[in-house]
Amino acid sequence: MILEVGFIPVLDGRQAEFETTINAAVEDLLSKSDGYLGFTFHGWGIERPNIYMFSVAWETLEHHTVGFRESDRFTQWRAIIGPFFDGAPNVEHFAV
Amino acid sequence: MILEVGFIPVLDGRQAEFETTINAAVEDLLSKSDGYLGFTFHGWGIERPNIYMFSVAWETLEHHTVGFRESDRFTQWRAIIGPFFDGAPNVEHFAV
Repeated sequence: MILEVGFIPVLDGRQAEFETTINAAVEDLLSKSDGYLGFTFHGWGIERPNIYMFSVAWETLEHHTVGFRESDRFTQWRAIIGPFFDGAPNVEHFAV
Repeated sequence: MILEVGFIPVLDGRQAEFETTINAAVEDLLSKSDGYLGFTFHGWGIERPNIYMFSVAWETLEHHTVGFRESDRFTQWRAIIGPFFDGAPNVEHFAV
């Protein structure tokens, strides 16, 4: 199991709308990917208030980096959540 | 509930010993703190191989920043796990 850990800077004042939007996109797009094991919202930053932290569990690294990121679902995912970004997301992977 | 999210750079070759040591320190010291709700090891970095990622759930921010960090238990905690550090840990807090 691989954990994708992400921090997304979200436009000020759009946080609640972003939460609703990404939750719907998880259900409609992300969760339909091969190797997807689960999505977790960890919270909004205290030191950096508009940072949305999440993680996604995947069976393997390639299920994320190839299977999802090179799919049409990723293009749709970014088109839906991208307009809320206030800068580039920071994403890293971890393995137990 | 507040999530403390931490990334610790660990000396090369000491990873397994660090895992055993921090697990014991969680049991002996961290878990005995007021407001402590749980510790999770999320894995070792893939892009940054010697980074140990963890999170700690706390009832409130102050349970971590004051109750734990200003306690003797924190001094002991750092004395036990600090010798494994290969640089400064990065710690942030998130709130749902």
